[in-house]
Amino acid sequence: MATSPRYLTGDAAGIQEFLDKFDVFLFDCDGVLWSGDHLFPGTNETLELLRSKGKQVVFVTNNSTKSRADYKKKLDGLGIPSNTEEIFSSSYSASIYISRILKLPENKRKVFVIGETGIEQELRSENVPFIGGTDAAYRRDITPEDYKRIAAGDSSLLDPEVGVVLVGLDFHINYLKMALAYHYVKRGAVFLATNIDSTLPNSGTLFPGAGSMSAPLIMMLGQEPVSLGKPNQAMMDAIEGKFKFDRAGACMVGDRANTDIRFGLEGQLGGTLAVLTGVSSKEDFVDGPIRPMAYLDKLSDLLASAPN
Amino acid sequence: MATSPRYLTGDAAGIQEFLDKFDVFLFDCDGVLWSGDHLFPGTNETLELLRSKGKQVVFVTNNSTKSRADYKKKLDGLGIPSNTEEIFSSSYSASIYISRILKLPENKRKVFVIGETGIEQELRSENVPFIGGTDAAYRRDITPEDYKRIAAGDSSLLDPEVGVVLVGLDFHINYLKMALAYHYVKRGAVFLATNIDSTLPNSGTLFPGAGSMSAPLIMMLGQEPVSLGKPNQAMMDAIEGKFKFDRAGACMVGDRANTDIRFGLEGQLGGTLAVLTGVSSKEDFVDGPIRPMAYLDKLSDLLASAPN
Repeated sequence: MATSPRYLTGDAAGIQEFLDKFDVFLFDCDGVLWSGDHLFPGTNETLELLRSKGKQVVFVTNNSTKSRADYKKKLDGLGIPSNTEEIFSSSYSASIYISRILKLPENKRKVFVIGETGIEQELRSENVPFIGGTDAAYRRDITPEDYKRIAAGDSSLLDPEVGVVLVGLDFHINYLKMALAYHYVKRGAVFLATNIDSTLPNSGTLFPGAGSMSAPLIMMLGQEPVSLGKPNQAMMDAIEGKFKFDRAGACMVGDRANTDIRFGLEGQLGGTLAVLTGVSSKEDFVDGPIRPMAYLDKLSDLLASAPN
Repeated sequence: MATSPRYLTGDAAGIQEFLDKFDVFLFDCDGVLWSGDHLFPGTNETLELLRSKGKQVVFVTNNSTKSRADYKKKLDGLGIPSNTEEIFSSSYSASIYISRILKLPENKRKVFVIGETGIEQELRSENVPFIGGTDAAYRRDITPEDYKRIAAGDSSLLDPEVGVVLVGLDFHINYLKMALAYHYVKRGAVFLATNIDSTLPNSGTLFPGAGSMSAPLIMMLGQEPVSLGKPNQAMMDAIEGKFKFDRAGACMVGDRANTDIRFGLEGQLGGTLAVLTGVSSKEDFVDGPIRPMAYLDKLSDLLASAPN
């Protein structure tokens, strides 16, 4: 049986004790630090408190359409002080996985990308060659000739050097891209996804997410991609590879039980902290199958420890 | 335990006995009568034999991109004599289901179509109003304004009269269509699919099928569509509703165990007949979990009964 999480709001001594246990705080962002374009009051003061106590802060996002540099701009726009090195996105996670963990044969190093510029920027940052992505040549209808060329393995349409298909959120998804991705995987390419969130929040409702781009391929191939986003531990491994932290001294902070909290629990981090300003409810955290170590009404309740 | 199917190739008496049991033969087409654009030798003679014995012949196809009239043209092009009334496609099946079986409220009778002209033609034949489909207005990128309009339920983008989302194969699938389909279902529309085949054969290989168009929605909604194609029995009910045949006197002929033969078995037809000129192998039919009543190397082996 999972034990009940400790409720820390208003418990200054409890907060102090909790914070003292950890040197690193991994933050999910939307629903924790802000919602949409609305910065939660006290977010900056809370981050400042943690930094003043010498804690490492890491912003962990499954958003694959943005590079770390793009995400830094988003944090800037919301008025959150940060530096690019503190940001860890699923597109960066995927790029690291491809460049440093996958052992691709010399002649199979190209990535066929379904996704937007964020993925392309991060692949470039790791010197990974790629095709597809935002290339306008792929933003067209499939033609009768394409079927024949694909069936024949025509190298002008199916690049023989492609060894990876990486699927993220693509606002320009189309039939041709799906067909090419399918054939690359059938011909032996590794099937990766930046993340498998089925939906993407926008304007207070939900839209198709990166997982919805992988869904047709999963159905056609009967095969799941390796996902490089939360809650998959390939992302935790990549974060650990970069920050070299001690998992026992790290805490994951998030608003979703089945992604953020699960990510921290399965990663065997020292702690998990939930907030009630996002998707999951108090009931989810207290009575559900995936329970954090502690929870707060809102992140800025951590400021109650400040007088100490 | 399923019993072993009877092997009829070369068994003239067995064939005669088999044919005598049935008045109606439902034919899967690709892999049975032809492959791609190649008509199998003896197909026409076999159909002629059946007709000469007074058998009703029905061509049953999951292809949603073609209307019955389009499909008739395909049969004509291959040199197979037929009339439109003998053809039963998943787009027609879906149209009948919407017009005659679904009881839609007066103000919720429009269908939002993801698909091509075949679906549109069949909806028109049943006087079902629809939007989407091949309308060029939906062949565009999603805009920042669209997110807000969709979130606000703007009736110029989300037609309040839509009560059904019908998903078939759409060579022009895009992010905007996926987003709209998702929101229509979330707002209460019935989620239908012409068929859920994940792939579509073309040029000797496979491409994304109608099921791959539904896959993102299934993932986002956590809900399966009602499928109006084989092997779903909604299609059998629609065929029976049209041809008024006695199921005990009907035989399904096909090349795929898990669609065609399953369709006939679950529909409790009197017989199922498999051929080895398509997807499933002899081993599938003889040792697999879904076994036909009988099988042939090829359909034209039925001609061996002709001398009788």
